[in-house]
Amino acid sequence: MPATQMEQLVSLCKRRGFIFQNSDIYGGLQGLYDYGPLGVELKNNIKAAWWRSMVYERDDIEGLDSAILTNRKVLHYSGHEDTFSDPMVDCKKCKGRFRADQIGGVCPNCGSTDLTEPRPFNLMFKTTVGPVVNDDNIAYLRPETAQAIFTQFKNVIDSTSRKLPFGIAQIGKSFRNEITPKNFIFRVREFEQAEMEFFVKPGEDEPWHEYWKQQRINWWLDQGLSKENFRVYDQKPDELAHYAKACTDIEYKFVWGFDELEGIANRRDYDLGNHTKNQEEFNLEAHCHENKESTTKLCVRDEETNKLYVPFVIEPSMGVDRATLAILTEAYTEEDLGEGNSRIVLKLKKHLAPIKIAIVPLKKNSAEIMNKCHELKKQLMKLGIGRVALENTGNIGKAYRRHDEIGTPLCLTVDFETIEQQPETVTLRDRDTMQQIRIATADLPAYLREYFA
Amino acid sequence: MPATQMEQLVSLCKRRGFIFQNSDIYGGLQGLYDYGPLGVELKNNIKAAWWRSMVYERDDIEGLDSAILTNRKVLHYSGHEDTFSDPMVDCKKCKGRFRADQIGGVCPNCGSTDLTEPRPFNLMFKTTVGPVVNDDNIAYLRPETAQAIFTQFKNVIDSTSRKLPFGIAQIGKSFRNEITPKNFIFRVREFEQAEMEFFVKPGEDEPWHEYWKQQRINWWLDQGLSKENFRVYDQKPDELAHYAKACTDIEYKFVWGFDELEGIANRRDYDLGNHTKNQEEFNLEAHCHENKESTTKLCVRDEETNKLYVPFVIEPSMGVDRATLAILTEAYTEEDLGEGNSRIVLKLKKHLAPIKIAIVPLKKNSAEIMNKCHELKKQLMKLGIGRVALENTGNIGKAYRRHDEIGTPLCLTVDFETIEQQPETVTLRDRDTMQQIRIATADLPAYLREYFA
Repeated sequence: MPATQMEQLVSLCKRRGFIFQNSDIYGGLQGLYDYGPLGVELKNNIKAAWWRSMVYERDDIEGLDSAILTNRKVLHYSGHEDTFSDPMVDCKKCKGRFRADQIGGVCPNCGSTDLTEPRPFNLMFKTTVGPVVNDDNIAYLRPETAQAIFTQFKNVIDSTSRKLPFGIAQIGKSFRNEITPKNFIFRVREFEQAEMEFFVKPGEDEPWHEYWKQQRINWWLDQGLSKENFRVYDQKPDELAHYAKACTDIEYKFVWGFDELEGIANRRDYDLGNHTKNQEEFNLEAHCHENKESTTKLCVRDEETNKLYVPFVIEPSMGVDRATLAILTEAYTEEDLGEGNSRIVLKLKKHLAPIKIAIVPLKKNSAEIMNKCHELKKQLMKLGIGRVALENTGNIGKAYRRHDEIGTPLCLTVDFETIEQQPETVTLRDRDTMQQIRIATADLPAYLREYFA
Repeated sequence: MPATQMEQLVSLCKRRGFIFQNSDIYGGLQGLYDYGPLGVELKNNIKAAWWRSMVYERDDIEGLDSAILTNRKVLHYSGHEDTFSDPMVDCKKCKGRFRADQIGGVCPNCGSTDLTEPRPFNLMFKTTVGPVVNDDNIAYLRPETAQAIFTQFKNVIDSTSRKLPFGIAQIGKSFRNEITPKNFIFRVREFEQAEMEFFVKPGEDEPWHEYWKQQRINWWLDQGLSKENFRVYDQKPDELAHYAKACTDIEYKFVWGFDELEGIANRRDYDLGNHTKNQEEFNLEAHCHENKESTTKLCVRDEETNKLYVPFVIEPSMGVDRATLAILTEAYTEEDLGEGNSRIVLKLKKHLAPIKIAIVPLKKNSAEIMNKCHELKKQLMKLGIGRVALENTGNIGKAYRRHDEIGTPLCLTVDFETIEQQPETVTLRDRDTMQQIRIATADLPAYLREYFA
């Protein structure tokens, strides 16, 4: 993949309405992006595919959707308040603040060498909740969705009567005040995560880690990533976080090289242990933060021994924006059509395509053709296959090119034969092969339901 | 509806896993809630119904999903930085801060009468983006999703070739540092909005306002709210915001009385006018903030006169959490079954029910029955009707009561007749009528597709 493709991708994203710079008309805000009309559909489709595979197609996972603003205590006991940081120095002269490993002992702003020693700079966004501004009212924007899964563990168990092994899945926004946002939507300050915490009995954790590794690899391949652009990396013992027993990174070959899409970690009893009441009652394996403030024991009862224990956690954690970028990168194709012609085509999997079918009128100034287009749109929308768009720019060649570029699997064209002959027929054009077939409108529902199943 | 029902609703929500207090194990964080396993499905179903009616079933609306962190300039020119506030006083002794209209000249914390004059307290949550903490780097959590729709107006037009009238729809989290959160998920500090800005030519705004009012009333009725608990209130001229030409409130009869679900406002050219470059070129009708920093003209060309103009905006803006609470309130029913028996049943519309079908084994220790349950679940999930749950608590009466309480429209029971006789049949029990029918499993897909269509 040529290195120039990143720019082509960024350009396509803006031109066709996938992704815009946030606050664009005021010069933007670094590391923040907005998803446009097609981007929101693509991202929603990716999230729906994840949710379907985690919640709907299984018997052992419940969903959750927790608040972004988070009680300081949650992020104190999770360890984020102490350790989720980069080393920074302050310039004593101009009061600027910079990452210690990126400056050469001289303030890049004013040139002063009067700098503080490096100090940890916490990457969490801080704010104050309630009218009184003081330390008691500090809250953070969550740096990951996972913590609420742990703090709500008991409420979920009590309301669903779940027994181990089972998981809790969540999709939502997280925030990290990254010093150096980069690579378009890859490293950003506001991003979306899809995280699942799977709770297992200690001793059963290793096979479950292997199981989830395989499940997640299969999921990524189902989203259209090809094996050759895909790498699975098992972290070595000296690379692991202190609480982790194992961690597997799923990496994709982005235009700047392989980089992380998802981590699948065996976090032992670290998370529930951090947040549980009466830690001393449990023989916790991970080195947890001492906690005298939690009001609840985050444990389950062993049905054989009748003893309480804190479950281990297997965590597949994916970045949704990274998923979007990987899927767009993989799908982007420039095709030589011969005779000096070429086209850009986004070869997205059907279930991810922002628009499923474009209805194209052969002539937009024919009332009969337009009426038939509207009628077909109404009818096809009811199939529940996603967005069906009426393409009314009036130029059929341009319409095909536009829908190739945005990945629409099918263009359905209404022409004079449609409205003049019986049985009523339309043409369907396939995005990838550009082949057209003529089909009776009476046969469309069954054909399309099968096509998009 | 008895006043005690609010407590019953809150209790049901926690007991069955719809809604939990956020950061519960650390005493919560006021005005913040988490949606549990059933709540996330209900809320997602409400959002999907809104998105379907706005984006999928129309030809004239595009979607958007913008960042929550917002450039200070956006909220300066929108007017939020100056005017989105409540009057507060500070206690000079203990440094506490309180709402001016809720204390009697004495600090409720330390009793001091040494208080400041009332000052406006801005309701936006503030944070700092990037490593350098200074005024230039202040950003806000958006207090509404609408502003990004206005600032991205030109990017959406340029990428979709839209002509007026058309709209941009968005669903997402917004944040307001409410002084007094109350009424469960009604007035909270972190909430979800579904907003649509419909751009029209000035002069065509009044019929469009009327049109959207009707559309939105119909939508709410489609979600199951009954007409007698529903009120539509047209604001009087002296109640309108200074920029608004008209505003209609849709109100629901919550347990504490009628309160707002949605506002449908005619905001004239206020929003695009606030953010446009070269304001003086346009004959803006609303009194907008002077803006010398925007880089972009937010206008369209009149095809008849060839002149540029700033469109008017009709805005239906709904609170998703409020919608959830209204729908739960309306659905909650205590039914006397006679002979001293009663049941709680959530009479949710089918498309909103968190679980569509519960598959119930007559005996959970029969491997044959359990295998058939798993097989049926796999098969029914593929229909794309939503969540199908396997109920494995083993007591059929309890399973029916649980699914009545959480609003599952159908319970499908697998019994010995299912596995022993041909053709293979199961029973389907209707939530509302409690009637059971016996149906061949071969007929299930067609029956259920029709039932949930």
